[in-house]
Amino acid sequence: MSITLEQAEKISDTAKQKAQEINVPMNIAIVDAGANLVSFHRMDKAWLGSVDIAIRKAKTARYFDMNSGEIGKLSQPGGPLYQIEVSNGGLISFPGGVLLKKGEDIVGAIGVSGGSVDQDHEVASAGAAAFQSL
Amino acid sequence: MSITLEQAEKISDTAKQKAQEINVPMNIAIVDAGANLVSFHRMDKAWLGSVDIAIRKAKTARYFDMNSGEIGKLSQPGGPLYQIEVSNGGLISFPGGVLLKKGEDIVGAIGVSGGSVDQDHEVASAGAAAFQSL
Amino acid sequence: MSITLEQAEKISDTAKQKAQEINVPMNIAIVDAGANLVSFHRMDKAWLGSVDIAIRKAKTARYFDMNSGEIGKLSQPGGPLYQIEVSNGGLISFPGGVLLKKGEDIVGAIGVSGGSVDQDHEVASAGAAAFQSL
Amino acid sequence: MSITLEQAEKISDTAKQKAQEINVPMNIAIVDAGANLVSFHRMDKAWLGSVDIAIRKAKTARYFDMNSGEIGKLSQPGGPLYQIEVSNGGLISFPGGVLLKKGEDIVGAIGVSGGSVDQDHEVASAGAAAFQSL
Repeated sequence: MSITLEQAEKISDTAKQKAQEINVPMNIAIVDAGANLVSFHRMDKAWLGSVDIAIRKAKTARYFDMNSGEIGKLSQPGGPLYQIEVSNGGLISFPGGVLLKKGEDIVGAIGVSGGSVDQDHEVASAGAAAFQSL
Repeated sequence: MSITLEQAEKISDTAKQKAQEINVPMNIAIVDAGANLVSFHRMDKAWLGSVDIAIRKAKTARYFDMNSGEIGKLSQPGGPLYQIEVSNGGLISFPGGVLLKKGEDIVGAIGVSGGSVDQDHEVASAGAAAFQSL
Repeated sequence: MSITLEQAEKISDTAKQKAQEINVPMNIAIVDAGANLVSFHRMDKAWLGSVDIAIRKAKTARYFDMNSGEIGKLSQPGGPLYQIEVSNGGLISFPGGVLLKKGEDIVGAIGVSGGSVDQDHEVASAGAAAFQSL
Repeated sequence: MSITLEQAEKISDTAKQKAQEINVPMNIAIVDAGANLVSFHRMDKAWLGSVDIAIRKAKTARYFDMNSGEIGKLSQPGGPLYQIEVSNGGLISFPGGVLLKKGEDIVGAIGVSGGSVDQDHEVASAGAAAFQSL
């Protein structure tokens, strides 16, 4: 089982609404169970450099079946996964990548970039939560 | 002047409808005047390898302000732009990348991949035409 | 539905037997439905440069849901997909990448490299045929 | 002298059994004396992002003739090999890459990724130990 475009659009819409609510223009990417891109949206005035980061956050989350920020806790100097970010053509290990799950099944991930990492995570989480009720 | 996400969504929607009409699942990418990604949609069952190609077609069109297939006419063996495809991290020089214009102003491009190049061009052109009337 | 490691091993084993039969050491790669690597085997004395090619052949087949050699027919100078090989970080568009199907469902692909393209295709096809009866 | 595919399969099998014993699905890569891939196996449900990491761990170990984690001790901020990970297209400098030796001769390396670095190292070491008695 994986994610459909229709589902991705709804997830992305919910994330966009949350971004508007907190008044931060965001880049929003969604990947499927195979870590391949399903949808991407850059809100007006969102950072250009965050196009790539949003996509990488989504991929990073699915690559390791955990939210992207969990990787960053482990990849600090002296940490067990120090410099893991050079793998897979470039990972993003700070918050904003969140798994998309149906029950226990991981079917994709959402990556958000454009604000503080807390804001990115909040917006991504809103999208992921919406998926649970689809 | 550039393209907004709202405009990109309408262009993409029109392209998607055309793709459904001809019954070919497509990858649809839209870039702005700066050749930066605004939106991307992969329709269910569209080719995974066309994610990258759709995005590159849109960028290629905006990079040279002509439809992607025009580049391919010039990049053949013996042609004036032979092997230009290795530039810019990889260009796609066959049809499916179409400029988005307002009057004479180029404000972005749409790239479509998933069918034959004629189908890709048809779907991209449908999206570009929709933009004229937005 | 995708391919398991156990299935990949059986497919790879069958391909290896075919390679031994025709007396050509091969590199054999298998990817799943998401185009992610499941298994790889380099037979003794197989070409080192074919490690990368075998993996890319498998990915190319799954990226476009057709055997890799089909792409090459379309990517020749003057052809509709000329230079498509620069996409996706590098495609291999000659024979040796073959789809793995269960009925009509595409669940992965096998890529073989080490001999002539006809030999590569023959070995890949033997692996793919074995999968049908698993 | 280098490693044969038959040897690589036995090493990989032993590593896989250890992975099953500790109940962590792993990616297991083996490279030869030339740091070229000989075999790769992704166990069902093992992390997709660890495909790349397992291969890089094996290469990193053989590139510098020491277990991958030894590099990480030297590459920390202020350390003598700070940022060495950006070389060679990306090194992985945390544990899980272990040398394959016959007596004093280094004939290859095994890289494992999918669990904690301690688990990765344990599984890689089980594979390397098996090689000693082949």
